[in-house]
Amino acid sequence: MRRLGDGVEAALHCAAVLAELPEGKVLSGRDLAALHGVSESYLLKHMRALTAAGVTEAVPGPRGGFRLARAPRQVSLLDVVEAVDGPGPAFVCREIRRKGDVTSNDPCAYRKDCFIKRRMLSAEQAWRTALRGQTLADLMADARAEIGFENLQAVGGFIEEKQR
Amino acid sequence: MRRLGDGVEAALHCAAVLAELPEGKVLSGRDLAALHGVSESYLLKHMRALTAAGVTEAVPGPRGGFRLARAPRQVSLLDVVEAVDGPGPAFVCREIRRKGDVTSNDPCAYRKDCFIKRRMLSAEQAWRTALRGQTLADLMADARAEIGFENLQAVGGFIEEKQR
Repeated sequence: MRRLGDGVEAALHCAAVLAELPEGKVLSGRDLAALHGVSESYLLKHMRALTAAGVTEAVPGPRGGFRLARAPRQVSLLDVVEAVDGPGPAFVCREIRRKGDVTSNDPCAYRKDCFIKRRMLSAEQAWRTALRGQTLADLMADARAEIGFENLQAVGGFIEEKQR
Repeated sequence: MRRLGDGVEAALHCAAVLAELPEGKVLSGRDLAALHGVSESYLLKHMRALTAAGVTEAVPGPRGGFRLARAPRQVSLLDVVEAVDGPGPAFVCREIRRKGDVTSNDPCAYRKDCFIKRRMLSAEQAWRTALRGQTLADLMADARAEIGFENLQAVGGFIEEKQR
């Protein structure tokens, strides 16, 4: 499979952390970058994409930072993936069916989408449906269930200390 | 979504055409390229990938060409996509959970896959399952049902004339 942009991983982790913030609080791009061991400039690119897509909000100013634009259960994994990697289809149809030596002279022959395109896009829909059915609230539940106590406390302490 | 390689479209169309060949017959790369209006060198790259993956067979020599390596109902759309674009996952996990300022000292903390990775890969499985459930035989049935008579005859005539 063609790989998703590697920013998708960073964006999902950041969104999951922002989901843990108390209402109204923000975390700076610098702190989100430090928490994930990535450069601030790299991360800001993806945070801007999340903000442009309405997943996060950017609060400007020296005490500014990022927060979710809506409740964690209202942000799906698809929202984050499409914010970073775009909403377009994975399968590219360049209509090669009409480009070769044997094409139809009938102007109505190509009114319907190519059946190859249709089958490929329907398979992608299964992926999108699976991503749409999972939200940041599910990631929060995973974190509670799976991250060890010591590490959960450390991350919680970091968020507590750095939130603005 | 990140786009699949554009070779996927050409490979699917070529595989669908090869599915129409009588047993033992082949079509040359040049004829497959002419039928689809793409350059031969471009197409051969993807036909070699299909052959390396065991989807097609390449018969060498001046009367050589390509044919399917197995029956159309035994070649799934996933086989073709993975032959051209690789079998690896679309979601890239670079384990950034362990790279930041707050990571666990417990050597057992990261034995399980990150839950973000797990959820992303499970969504991809829905896509793969959908692609695996459709075969070249389905494309042949689509062609019979959807391509207009005149065009179907023209393509059939091309295959009849060019097969070796």
